[in-house]
Amino acid sequence: MNGKNNFWAENYTMLFDFYELTMGNGYFNSGKAHQISYFDMFFRDIPDGGGFAIAAGLQQVIDYIENLRFTEEDIDFLRSKGCFTEEFLNYLRTFRFTGDIWAVPEGTPIFPKEPILVVRAPAIEAQFVETFILLTVNHQSLIATKANRIVRAACGKPVSEFGSRRAQGTAGAILGARAAYIGGASSTACAIADQLYGVPASGTMAHSWVQMFDTEYEAFDTYCRIYPDSATLLVDTYNVLKSGIPNAIKAFKAHGIEKGGIRIDSGDIAYLSRKARKMLDEAGMPGIKIIVSNSLDEYIIRDLMQQDAKIDAFGVGERMITSKSTPVFGGVYKLVAVEDSEGKVIPKIKISENAGKITTPHFKKVYRIFEKDTGKANADLICLASETPDFTKPLTIFDPVYTWKRKTYENYEAKELLLPIFKDGKRVYDSPTTAEIRNYCAGEVAKLWDEVKRFENPHTYYVDLSENLWQIKQDLLGGKR
Amino acid sequence: MNGKNNFWAENYTMLFDFYELTMGNGYFNSGKAHQISYFDMFFRDIPDGGGFAIAAGLQQVIDYIENLRFTEEDIDFLRSKGCFTEEFLNYLRTFRFTGDIWAVPEGTPIFPKEPILVVRAPAIEAQFVETFILLTVNHQSLIATKANRIVRAACGKPVSEFGSRRAQGTAGAILGARAAYIGGASSTACAIADQLYGVPASGTMAHSWVQMFDTEYEAFDTYCRIYPDSATLLVDTYNVLKSGIPNAIKAFKAHGIEKGGIRIDSGDIAYLSRKARKMLDEAGMPGIKIIVSNSLDEYIIRDLMQQDAKIDAFGVGERMITSKSTPVFGGVYKLVAVEDSEGKVIPKIKISENAGKITTPHFKKVYRIFEKDTGKANADLICLASETPDFTKPLTIFDPVYTWKRKTYENYEAKELLLPIFKDGKRVYDSPTTAEIRNYCAGEVAKLWDEVKRFENPHTYYVDLSENLWQIKQDLLGGKR
Repeated sequence: MNGKNNFWAENYTMLFDFYELTMGNGYFNSGKAHQISYFDMFFRDIPDGGGFAIAAGLQQVIDYIENLRFTEEDIDFLRSKGCFTEEFLNYLRTFRFTGDIWAVPEGTPIFPKEPILVVRAPAIEAQFVETFILLTVNHQSLIATKANRIVRAACGKPVSEFGSRRAQGTAGAILGARAAYIGGASSTACAIADQLYGVPASGTMAHSWVQMFDTEYEAFDTYCRIYPDSATLLVDTYNVLKSGIPNAIKAFKAHGIEKGGIRIDSGDIAYLSRKARKMLDEAGMPGIKIIVSNSLDEYIIRDLMQQDAKIDAFGVGERMITSKSTPVFGGVYKLVAVEDSEGKVIPKIKISENAGKITTPHFKKVYRIFEKDTGKANADLICLASETPDFTKPLTIFDPVYTWKRKTYENYEAKELLLPIFKDGKRVYDSPTTAEIRNYCAGEVAKLWDEVKRFENPHTYYVDLSENLWQIKQDLLGGKR
Repeated sequence: MNGKNNFWAENYTMLFDFYELTMGNGYFNSGKAHQISYFDMFFRDIPDGGGFAIAAGLQQVIDYIENLRFTEEDIDFLRSKGCFTEEFLNYLRTFRFTGDIWAVPEGTPIFPKEPILVVRAPAIEAQFVETFILLTVNHQSLIATKANRIVRAACGKPVSEFGSRRAQGTAGAILGARAAYIGGASSTACAIADQLYGVPASGTMAHSWVQMFDTEYEAFDTYCRIYPDSATLLVDTYNVLKSGIPNAIKAFKAHGIEKGGIRIDSGDIAYLSRKARKMLDEAGMPGIKIIVSNSLDEYIIRDLMQQDAKIDAFGVGERMITSKSTPVFGGVYKLVAVEDSEGKVIPKIKISENAGKITTPHFKKVYRIFEKDTGKANADLICLASETPDFTKPLTIFDPVYTWKRKTYENYEAKELLLPIFKDGKRVYDSPTTAEIRNYCAGEVAKLWDEVKRFENPHTYYVDLSENLWQIKQDLLGGKR
């Protein structure tokens, strides 16, 4: 998976919230260490008020789980904290993940309140992996979701990820570039994201290149001489229309370049791009492309498209790599069941005065219901893992709150979303390449109705519970205090 | 510096924007490789409309520079991109940073448009380090600045950093915790930030601990038995006032715990904390502390303090670790000068139609002017590096735009802000510990006037240019096209 040896830390075991281990020590010392538990990762709100999110980050969860182990150095550090028993520290020496994990594949459109990753493991282990799973899936799903919005705004024009310098840390830059690519970005400025994950990297010049020469023309001329096949000239160091474009045209002509590009990084992009296109066309250079950058996001790109800006490609920086308008993906990880001593699954619920925060209990699976005629996704149905719905018959689903809201599907297909990733601590899933994930993502997003894809006030995609699961939740809500 | 062996990648050389290397190859192949250049890192806008920011991230710049080198694997990858000459790839084999770096120490309050880091190096080298320097200093300065706001809102009550699970990637979590500590957070939930940087880690229990037991009391009782010295019980799994606090009181009593704590993570914190305090006091437990969490930031904490909430400590998650309200620190890295063949420094300027984006040219240094009577910082003065102002005389500074706005200081001290970090590629700076940086930060923030520290509409701290520097900038603005 990793095209560069030993780049990331070999193991991220020590990247956990300290309470995972105070609880772990507590489970260990109260006889609950081996209590088989089920945890769901799910999220409640879609970033930017969108209609769906994109799952990403599973590959890094897999790498993490496979390398999970404490070193002696780690154990010495933990001992120094003075709150763990020697028996527990000794147990950590051979700590491995021995449980099961199911997850939706990366690139899948996901919706609030459905499990996107499920862990079944002894309590200590299931609790311990919480922090890293949330961190990684939250981060990459956030960026993939934002990138997908921006790419859709660009209506087929390529979007390049330019944000490394404004990312929140090195992984923010590198795995952010990976996630942006999964979400549909076509390339990145981040060289190592290419080396590690095959995200195509490209780049041409900064303003400093132009400043480094005595004249703008000399800077362009030199660049065209060195890169006759790929010269993209940055034309806004002094004045786009009076200096940048005329000098670029002169340099392209001098070197016989017909397929180069110009980049505009400031000013009124709509106006400048139209003027630039006209100047280039009048100079007989229809093959020179116009690339724009400067604080772009899906809203500005949509406006530019509506204003008939003459743009061939977009470079998007900080607003994509940090998902600036909504920089947090609020995935949570909640206990949903335990097994009793006979292996019977006992559902658990977390009550809250805020109805939206009540969890859906039990070990579950999720089906996506596709309309056969159109191939479009109509709803997700969450069932008990032990249920086998009869999908050869018409399917009636209902809103879990407004239960009179019902819908019946006849000509449909049901596809299970959660795939087995680990079984008894062994990986049972072969990861696709990043490019394959990106293709899969584009294909699955194409199966969503346009109403779900609106930037503002999208249709709320149905995520309903099976009759059985709904009844169990009601019973727990009624009986629990 | 690093308390855990081999955690981070040994070298981040490949984490660069691809254009740094297309330009590098261009400089190399156009005789400009060894052109000595000066770049300033500075920022234009203070996050959240605040009055100052906090510099952080220098330690990671130092580690990066010291480990800068291309491996054969890296060179093979770059060759595969098909745009670099063999001569250049060969040059990269022995590529090292050979230049000079000056920077403000971590923890220093910084202001817009003043250099916070200056690089003097051959063009290729100075250009190459741009991405990593910006990435690291932008990220950590962002989080340190946000943490400092939040800590100031808490008026001396401890603030713990809780955000790993919502951070933007692993470095976002770990170095974010480091930066939050520099900014004033008192501890973190992130275990590895303690192991690597000595940020004190702590933590107690999640809702899942409570759910894992048959009753809330059993969960509390078990926890108090295992951690009689540090039990902090999470009291909102079912109902704070009817169940959580009564069960906590009962468990504390059963175990004779007088110095524990309770944590409230949902609901109306102001109301619940007052009620909780009353219940605990009436039970004769004035030593039990009340810790609150749940989407806190400086504004909510300020409101809670104004509402006389009874809170002893705050846990702050996503809004601090991502600086959610302003998730980007817009530091930039701009060419400000080159040296001619005789070593004479030639200033360079970047013009822009947006007056705010025009750079301040030349190789510079920065003085902070402190009032002797109060010790307070009154202004920063940017000078030519070659200037030696006479600070024994009264000092008159003037606004660089509204030049009639003048101010004269008589009883003052001037302290140079930019310290030498690298000289001829060798580190000449001994890094303080993270705790020392945190103390230094608190001390320097205390030297700012309250007017500068307001959350909204703070006084704009003076950052002025020396007469000489101002004149050079005017000349370049007048003459350049």
